Amino acid sequence: MPSLPPLSPTTRSTLTRNRDRALHDRQALYSLLDQALVCHLGVVLDGSPVVVPTGFGRDGDTLYLHGSTGSANLRAARGADVCVAVTVLDAIVYARSLQHHSMNYRSAVIHGTARPVTDERAKLHGLRVLTEHLSPGSWQHARHPNDKELAAVAVLALDLTEASVKQRSGEPTEEPADLADGTAWAGVLPVQTTFGDPVPATYVPPGTGVPSHVAGRTIRPPAR
Amino acid sequence: MPSLPPLSPTTRSTLTRNRDRALHDRQALYSLLDQALVCHLGVVLDGSPVVVPTGFGRDGDTLYLHGSTGSANLRAARGADVCVAVTVLDAIVYARSLQHHSMNYRSAVIHGTARPVTDERAKLHGLRVLTEHLSPGSWQHARHPNDKELAAVAVLALDLTEASVKQRSGEPTEEPADLADGTAWAGVLPVQTTFGDPVPATYVPPGTGVPSHVAGRTIRPPAR
Repeated sequence: MPSLPPLSPTTRSTLTRNRDRALHDRQALYSLLDQALVCHLGVVLDGSPVVVPTGFGRDGDTLYLHGSTGSANLRAARGADVCVAVTVLDAIVYARSLQHHSMNYRSAVIHGTARPVTDERAKLHGLRVLTEHLSPGSWQHARHPNDKELAAVAVLALDLTEASVKQRSGEPTEEPADLADGTAWAGVLPVQTTFGDPVPATYVPPGTGVPSHVAGRTIRPPAR
Repeated sequence: MPSLPPLSPTTRSTLTRNRDRALHDRQALYSLLDQALVCHLGVVLDGSPVVVPTGFGRDGDTLYLHGSTGSANLRAARGADVCVAVTVLDAIVYARSLQHHSMNYRSAVIHGTARPVTDERAKLHGLRVLTEHLSPGSWQHARHPNDKELAAVAVLALDLTEASVKQRSGEPTEEPADLADGTAWAGVLPVQTTFGDPVPATYVPPGTGVPSHVAGRTIRPPAR
């Protein structure tokens, strides 16, 4: 594995609790971002927080977001201070005490300024990265945007500079007294995300095969 | 199904786009909240948005959040204007054009003031609601919090008054020209979340059965 630059947490991205859960490891950030399908974008609108789910894509140390040029939330994010959270839930953690019930998860919180990507070549590159994340193989398979479609989509770029990755894994935590005397069951219940069988659109001619980039798709494993 | 009060969207929770995707339907909100396991909580810290994943629970028209009294994000949310987003991804949507590639999903965005719950009885009720959401059955099975543990946890309550529910379902959208002449495969690839086999903690005596509230647990279906 190549040597990677460390994450650069600042005060707001530095965890104040559970520092042992913080992995300041760029590879962990990449791995999580490559596996997750949805992120949650936070902006400040009229002084209040607004959080919306959206797709994303990663190329190196750049996170891409996109949406309609008419989207109020995307307009609010343009050139603004944003926060993007990406979470994968791995398991429900059952401890002997309710206090230590928890979840195993991996999450990233990224802060930065969302730069509008307006240069046509750069915008097409961003859209390609977004497409390859949402639906690997579709960039080669499906019709590319025409000028009108390209003009209607806004692409934003966010540097993966100020970010923290947090995770919990493994066994439940217990109090010594519960370990010694507790009788409640304890353990983890894995949470799994998988793809089901592809459902062709009604207008696809009968007998058309499902292309391999759809039929063979799997959730990217945590470690890459 | 009982008659339910309509959601009360305000300007910031009213969708400016895809109004056909907005279901101002309280039952859809309940159903989504009851199925999802994680929410994303947005607060404003020093003028910047901060989004973090966290567990939650619902009782009627109240959403409960909790965390350590030492958590900076929870302290920032206490009595403050917050936004909670809950999202379930249902499918990847492959259209004949990249422009219409999309996701089928259900999401809720809730705005409000997070009220600290400090009365001991109300706090225990909130913790019960949170526990029954994270791990149904654990309230009866596991050890309850003692006074010290109860003092170390903060519970917040958020009214489900100002909320919007948005969803996309069904077939891809297509341009007429792509419907007529396109040859690319189109359809949806379902995304499924399931529980795997429970893994007992190493300190659970061999031969201990997995209790039915864990062994028989399933993801709550979308419609209840």
